[in-house]
Amino acid sequence: MSEIKDKSIATFLDELASKQATPGGGSAAAVMGAQAAALISMVCNLTIGKPKYAEVETELKNLLIEAEALRQTLIDMIKADVDVFDKLMASYGLPKANDQEKSQRSEQIQIVLKEATLVPLACAKACAKAIELSKIAADKGNLGVISDAGVAVMAAYAGLKSAALNVQINAAGLKDRDFANAQLAELDGLLAAAEQAALHVYQTVQSKL
Amino acid sequence: MSEIKDKSIATFLDELASKQATPGGGSAAAVMGAQAAALISMVCNLTIGKPKYAEVETELKNLLIEAEALRQTLIDMIKADVDVFDKLMASYGLPKANDQEKSQRSEQIQIVLKEATLVPLACAKACAKAIELSKIAADKGNLGVISDAGVAVMAAYAGLKSAALNVQINAAGLKDRDFANAQLAELDGLLAAAEQAALHVYQTVQSKL
Repeated sequence: MSEIKDKSIATFLDELASKQATPGGGSAAAVMGAQAAALISMVCNLTIGKPKYAEVETELKNLLIEAEALRQTLIDMIKADVDVFDKLMASYGLPKANDQEKSQRSEQIQIVLKEATLVPLACAKACAKAIELSKIAADKGNLGVISDAGVAVMAAYAGLKSAALNVQINAAGLKDRDFANAQLAELDGLLAAAEQAALHVYQTVQSKL
Repeated sequence: MSEIKDKSIATFLDELASKQATPGGGSAAAVMGAQAAALISMVCNLTIGKPKYAEVETELKNLLIEAEALRQTLIDMIKADVDVFDKLMASYGLPKANDQEKSQRSEQIQIVLKEATLVPLACAKACAKAIELSKIAADKGNLGVISDAGVAVMAAYAGLKSAALNVQINAAGLKDRDFANAQLAELDGLLAAAEQAALHVYQTVQSKL
């Protein structure tokens, strides 16, 4: 089966809508984050090289490098979400006919649940990073495409809030509460910082329309 | 050239990131809205037919029909945004060597700007509708996939706020202020209603995790 990123948008949406378990919201969150990164790159690409914006050229060249690396990270996360979900389903499907099997199954579920908490947390971090990068695009980018920086910040924010739900749902099933609480605390930090930052970037864009 | 919906996600993101003028934020907004509609359908498809949810079966079957129609509408908008942007660029490119040409060019720009205001407004309306539909998915859907209703509402909200920027940017260039103000008033109505509605749906989902 081909990777999701190589499927057409129409096919991806068909599979998202279907009763197949994957792809689901976790992959959708990564796609939104990747759209954010791509739009930041677009603003850079349409600013770099224009004499009017010569003063910010170096800064936007660096921003472009960061946005492109982030886009690749987020594209990889589309697949990572599917992979860890499939592993989770496989561990739930392990035999549980006797106490030994039950104990092994439960242990395996806990191992995979940790991974299933860390994968969306990494997506949430990448989306939070996209919000940061969108601020530079909104502050310094070509005014002719500044609305794209506004779309980028909304896509990144939606990706973050979406990934957050998957962190929360999987952390809730963890028996290792120290581990779970550490991840949830990190997530809360990201969410607290992002809320105001995203609003600020969006308002910056609106003030420049 | 093939339509965007038939391109791979990776190619769409490459084109979004490039210095090509299209696709841009308008198409990204429609993709986010379509992801929202698809996720609402997913929640329906994983609820319908389950004995535990027999009581809401009819309601979710109707929701599925609405979500699927909305998804098709939003998929069509990915292309509509590119088409109207290309028309706008073409009208800006009209000759302006003499007064007659200048006047004809200006008139044509105004005609296309009206269309370029209405296209993202229609996308904003469709995303606002997706927020409404996500409420039913969050209230009545299978608890096992309720986080997907939360991802749906965030995607729809981001699509709406993104489309709004394109309405505002194009309405700003309109000489027919009555027309512009009517569209902006409609947009403000959508935004005012959506803000609380989206937050409410997201909180409903979080309370059920």
